[in-house]
Parts: sequence; structure tokens; C-alpha cells
Amino acid sequence: MKARVHISLKNGVLDPQGKAIGLTLGNLGFEGVGEVRQGKLIELDLDEADAAAARKSVEAMCEKLLANTVIENYTIELDDN
Amino acid sequence: MKARVHISLKNGVLDPQGKAIGLTLGNLGFEGVGEVRQGKLIELDLDEADAAAARKSVEAMCEKLLANTVIENYTIELDDN
Repeated sequence: MKARVHISLKNGVLDPQGKAIGLTLGNLGFEGVGEVRQGKLIELDLDEADAAAARKSVEAMCEKLLANTVIENYTIELDDN
Repeated sequence: MKARVHISLKNGVLDPQGKAIGLTLGNLGFEGVGEVRQGKLIELDLDEADAAAARKSVEAMCEKLLANTVIENYTIELDDN
């Protein structure tokens, strides 16, 4: 089973990288771009076949290593294929 | 309209950051984790209300700035809300 973890900064946490992207898009001539936020995408190949067990395991990975839960939110997507 | 861009390394491109995450998960006692790949997630607020025009504009942003298309793939998700 494949898992995709999306990690993004919580609202209110400053995101200088996203701001730099937004400014550069403006400089390149892209108009109508408001806030830009940059996060992380982590794709994992798991041996686990049971979706509930896989989700629980990936949640533990996020809490322990993948996300800094003080400033980051994470969402987990599982893909059976 | 909100756009989310997922940027991930193409297959075959070395991903030392993903490898480090995979090794660390193993060291922390998580079993059955195969390949790990780390990518980027960029969230954009767009003024554009038309989905087709928004997608075209975000594709141009990816080609020009957001993704390095030599080594990275990107996918675009649009969210009307």
C-alpha cells in the first residue's frame, strides 16, 4: 500500500519560502496570485495491506518524525494499488 | 480559487532526503516501510475563477518556476471553494 503525507504549516505560522515564491511569481508577470504556502509531500511504500492499520502506523510516523506538530498540520492519503 | 501543486522527483532520480527518512523510520522501530520519497507541496490562492484558465496559469508557473521539469513531475489540483 502507498501512503502520501501532506505536511503544511499551520495558519498563522510565517512561511518565508512561500512568500518568496509568491513575490517571484509576481516578478515573472503572473497576476492574481494571493497567498502562497509551501509544504512537504512524503510518499511511503508500506508492506501493510490493511488500510486502518496502515493509517494508524503512518499517523505514528507523523507524530514521531515526519511532522513538527507544533507548527505543522498533516493529512494522510492511502492508495490501495 | 485554490490550487495545490504536488511536486515529486521522477522515478530513477536519487532522493537522499527520502532515503534518510526511510532509514530513520527503521531506526525508530517502524517496520515494513519500503521506498520513501520526499517532494514539495505548494498551495496558491488565485483570483482567477475559471478552472480551465486557472489550470493553464498554474501549469505555466510550474514550467517557469515551481518545478524543475528535468528531474521533477508535478500534478495540479484545483479547489473551487
